[in-house]
Amino acid sequence: MHEWLQQHRDEGILLLQDLVRIPSTQGNEREAQLLVAKRLHRMKLEVDLWEPDGKTLEAHPFFYSPRSGFEGSPNVVGLLRGTGGGRSIILNGHIDIVPEGDRKAWWHDPYSGKVEDGKLYGRGATDMKGGNTALLLAIQAIQELGIRLKGDVIFQSVVEEESGGAGTLATILRGYQADAALIPEPTNMRIFPKQQGSMWFRIEIKGRSAHGGTRYEGVSAIEKSMLVVQHIRELEDKRNARITDPLYATNPIPIPINLGVIQGGNWPSSVPDSVKLEGRMGVAPEESLVQAKEEMARWLERLQERDSWFKEHPPVLEWFGARWVPGSVDPGHELMRVVTEHYRAVRSEEPVIEASPWGTDGGLLTLLGETPCIIFGPGLTQLAHYPNEHIVLDHLFEAAEIIALTLIEWCGIDESEEEIADGAEAEAIQPGESH
Amino acid sequence: MHEWLQQHRDEGILLLQDLVRIPSTQGNEREAQLLVAKRLHRMKLEVDLWEPDGKTLEAHPFFYSPRSGFEGSPNVVGLLRGTGGGRSIILNGHIDIVPEGDRKAWWHDPYSGKVEDGKLYGRGATDMKGGNTALLLAIQAIQELGIRLKGDVIFQSVVEEESGGAGTLATILRGYQADAALIPEPTNMRIFPKQQGSMWFRIEIKGRSAHGGTRYEGVSAIEKSMLVVQHIRELEDKRNARITDPLYATNPIPIPINLGVIQGGNWPSSVPDSVKLEGRMGVAPEESLVQAKEEMARWLERLQERDSWFKEHPPVLEWFGARWVPGSVDPGHELMRVVTEHYRAVRSEEPVIEASPWGTDGGLLTLLGETPCIIFGPGLTQLAHYPNEHIVLDHLFEAAEIIALTLIEWCGIDESEEEIADGAEAEAIQPGESH
Repeated sequence: MHEWLQQHRDEGILLLQDLVRIPSTQGNEREAQLLVAKRLHRMKLEVDLWEPDGKTLEAHPFFYSPRSGFEGSPNVVGLLRGTGGGRSIILNGHIDIVPEGDRKAWWHDPYSGKVEDGKLYGRGATDMKGGNTALLLAIQAIQELGIRLKGDVIFQSVVEEESGGAGTLATILRGYQADAALIPEPTNMRIFPKQQGSMWFRIEIKGRSAHGGTRYEGVSAIEKSMLVVQHIRELEDKRNARITDPLYATNPIPIPINLGVIQGGNWPSSVPDSVKLEGRMGVAPEESLVQAKEEMARWLERLQERDSWFKEHPPVLEWFGARWVPGSVDPGHELMRVVTEHYRAVRSEEPVIEASPWGTDGGLLTLLGETPCIIFGPGLTQLAHYPNEHIVLDHLFEAAEIIALTLIEWCGIDESEEEIADGAEAEAIQPGESH
Repeated sequence: MHEWLQQHRDEGILLLQDLVRIPSTQGNEREAQLLVAKRLHRMKLEVDLWEPDGKTLEAHPFFYSPRSGFEGSPNVVGLLRGTGGGRSIILNGHIDIVPEGDRKAWWHDPYSGKVEDGKLYGRGATDMKGGNTALLLAIQAIQELGIRLKGDVIFQSVVEEESGGAGTLATILRGYQADAALIPEPTNMRIFPKQQGSMWFRIEIKGRSAHGGTRYEGVSAIEKSMLVVQHIRELEDKRNARITDPLYATNPIPIPINLGVIQGGNWPSSVPDSVKLEGRMGVAPEESLVQAKEEMARWLERLQERDSWFKEHPPVLEWFGARWVPGSVDPGHELMRVVTEHYRAVRSEEPVIEASPWGTDGGLLTLLGETPCIIFGPGLTQLAHYPNEHIVLDHLFEAAEIIALTLIEWCGIDESEEEIADGAEAEAIQPGESH
């Protein structure tokens, strides 16, 4: 396996470059998806390419997207059908990327795919076309080495992860399910059996307008918003004090409540009568979105104990925009054991196992799709969504190797006589083998 | 005088209606100014109508305006030349109005001039076409009653008060000066010998961006801005503790620092790296703008004692937009005595004498124009700039009477024989007379 990947290193880099050079932002995924579909077809997988139906999705309680039409944004699934009797697995990666942002902050063209010092640069290199490339290489290696798996491998290249997971939701509603799933989001080679969910909220804080020269006649929504910021900090403390999961041992704020936007008032000489706060509430892996929402709402009601102004003028809480359901897989799950073992073998070190500080489509797969999903991938978490995003190419190939070996052990090898002739080298490969 | 005003009540109301029906917002003052000029001409005043020269104004340290060209925005001055030997006075009022804002919040068309229950409605009725009408009626009464004043009366209808006083600045640079001045801004019949100045500022507070899921890797500019808000509250306390002037006795915050606008961050899931606060700093009547600016700058430097983050990332202070210089006239000034006396006589009550909580063009007249200016006028302070602005018509006529009697006493009556024939009733009028 290691050898095959070494031999196909240039081909793998070219594939990632091809993907990075297509700016597959929301609504512009078709070209990249056709490239993926073509490759799956060449690898002899059964290809399913379809544009999700916005109407069906919209009616689903787990749907969130700023759009309701998916013309030009197809999902692609490639099925490597097993010979039977093995465990199936979903390998899921999103093709959509966030926009490049300020081009001047990039050293190279954000869609160059330039390789320098063992790193490949470009928007999406880390989040997560690098991970997708690792998946494709792993499957291709298995195919070309003539290994016949017993269980199905369901490769999914989905749209819309960055905007709330409608692409993965569409695969679930189309009936895709497996015994387990793996998403190679950029964890920097850490393994995440659990992941934080998150939701966006908006709080409007009210004041009473007056001329700034007689500001004592008004009530400043800016001053009142300070109390709300403080109050939310205390809720964050309270929620995090409950988190005892050792997977969060090194995380100072396992489920943060981030206040990302503040906006209020419109005239320097007026007392502002409204301030809006927008933020992201982290949701614990074992918590439900509904529980978290209720806790926030109840907590805000207690603002009136802090300041009687809030009794007559309660802040208005609203949940809007993106949300990601949390996910939790028992760290003792069999897939965890398999990935961990091959990680050790390939990298000659203990893997870091943590709970993720952000959500992925894995929450949907685990919770709704009934397919326990873990997250493990190459790519540098802290570069996602930032200028000069890049991936360390060695990590990509190491991840591909770990994943290929995982597939072999998880799905099982069919070593029955009649088929062996198809894959000349297959007998030489055993699960867990690596260099 | 009282009688003349009673007899000309309908004419006065019509004049104010004519003025209110012209929406003389910034840049659109010409039509209203021509109406004023025509009236001054009919009243036999020497009329000076000119468009201020933007280039000359811009070079002046007291200039502030969002624009540098004044085409279509003439000033009008009407000079009622005295016979000599008396004290001169400037009567100044601005013709510009602020926009009507949300039309749906108005009961009537904002430019209707509708009269209902003794009130006249419309944008500018209170701020300050009502005051201007009182000035014009006072002068007209004196003229029509044949009273010949010894000192000059310089009536000024200026542009641009709402945006920083460039209209009045232009009258000063044109050479207009007098022994004293009066501006009938809407004080609700209070008399203001002193007025607060004000300036707008902007403070940018810096943070460090990070993903909201790992917000502990960043520094929230929203949280840091809370410290700045608190710090500014303390500066306000400190500055106001110094104010011992009895004119501020009833004002809980004589020179407030109002924070009117807050804006920061642009994504709910990101730690915001910048927050901007915009506000208005009140400046004490005897304080200079420079002193106030320096105190604010020094105070912000002390933020690093509160939080070492500010040592490496000091907030950036900027003075922008509008400013009004403060003004202070000794409450024992002769014009104060004269106005107060006629106020008592006309209204049969003691006037309320205070320091104003906002600036007017009076600061410029006093400080730069060397013409001590007091503020007294009809019109309801709290309705200025708001929907359903209106003026109580009785107040307008009372103010006209007080001002007319003030002019007579201040400028003095010329009772020499040769001219008496021109004004048949003049001998019947004495300063201080009223009903």
